Amino acid sequence: MPQGKPTTVPDDGLTTRQRRNRPLLVVHTGAGKGKSTAAFGLALRGWNQGWRIGVFQFVKSAKWRIGEQTVLERLGRLHEETGEGGPVQWHKMGSGWSWSRKQGEAEDHELAAREGWAEIKRRLADETHDLLVLDEFTYPMKWGWVDVDDVVEALTSRPGHQHVVITGRDAHPTLVEAADLVTEMAKVKHPMDVGQKGQKGIEW
Amino acid sequence: MPQGKPTTVPDDGLTTRQRRNRPLLVVHTGAGKGKSTAAFGLALRGWNQGWRIGVFQFVKSAKWRIGEQTVLERLGRLHEETGEGGPVQWHKMGSGWSWSRKQGEAEDHELAAREGWAEIKRRLADETHDLLVLDEFTYPMKWGWVDVDDVVEALTSRPGHQHVVITGRDAHPTLVEAADLVTEMAKVKHPMDVGQKGQKGIEW
Repeated sequence: MPQGKPTTVPDDGLTTRQRRNRPLLVVHTGAGKGKSTAAFGLALRGWNQGWRIGVFQFVKSAKWRIGEQTVLERLGRLHEETGEGGPVQWHKMGSGWSWSRKQGEAEDHELAAREGWAEIKRRLADETHDLLVLDEFTYPMKWGWVDVDDVVEALTSRPGHQHVVITGRDAHPTLVEAADLVTEMAKVKHPMDVGQKGQKGIEW
Repeated sequence: MPQGKPTTVPDDGLTTRQRRNRPLLVVHTGAGKGKSTAAFGLALRGWNQGWRIGVFQFVKSAKWRIGEQTVLERLGRLHEETGEGGPVQWHKMGSGWSWSRKQGEAEDHELAAREGWAEIKRRLADETHDLLVLDEFTYPMKWGWVDVDDVVEALTSRPGHQHVVITGRDAHPTLVEAADLVTEMAKVKHPMDVGQKGQKGIEW
């Protein structure tokens, strides 16, 4: 919810309304929980606005189906059936991107990450989605699998009104610099510290 | 997703399975974005597990309907229609709790907060929900509207298998001490810092 007022009024020639509706580049980083969960929560909110949602999972649980995928894809079908909300696409890198002919072949994660980013660049140019969640995309950037400058250039010059949310630890400083909204999820306390493993419903 | 292994194995007489499935008290605190969004993301995940979801909004947007409410209530109706997922209840304090006869009367926020907490205590005792989200509940605790020791006692002695997620800034140290999982959402950068106001789909 909007809380408080902006602390400065920029001299950017935009009206408040124009500035308000500027598309955002959002980063959820840090070692704590909630980075992806909050991103999928934004997808939920965007679906309710009728936005076209695109989720791209780069690393974590890429072979699994997590609860959010089931629910967001279910909401996507609800959109097709009733017109409520917006359409949802969920793609994951794990066993090959769903659009790729190489699906199911032996994995080359670096190649797959590059392919994923190339596809996302095309979609940004085509304005395919209104909200893109690039889940765990900080890692291919960190590991040099995709070029940071190329990513930031494509993101900051994206046309139209596309919101982008990127999650993962160790967000590259150049990405943080380019982002509009950056939250660090910091771990204060975690059950694994006291010997508790992950559990369904909470971790996936 | 379960990542890595516990760093210690506790001498608590529980099996790994028992320990894994222990209900969690989760706190999302800090000045950054994503505290409530990640909590509602957990509700999404829990719904997919068939859990009975209860959301209690104490302060923020209490008079508004946020996107998550629309979607989670829609998922609750989907459960009634098709049996998918679990049932959802969403209560907010704004114009009087929905179970209260005082609904719509002139507001006394402190009284309403106490009533909300009293109802939640009853529900915890009755094991009404599998996941309870107490959104912005840190504030009534901070302001002394509800007694911190009473809250922590009721939470730590809750019966059965009820997960509880509490959001809001400035979580009381006693609550943090009692919690199993605490994440601090820290603000690194926010559009309001550069004069941008909140916008639909992102902020609500």
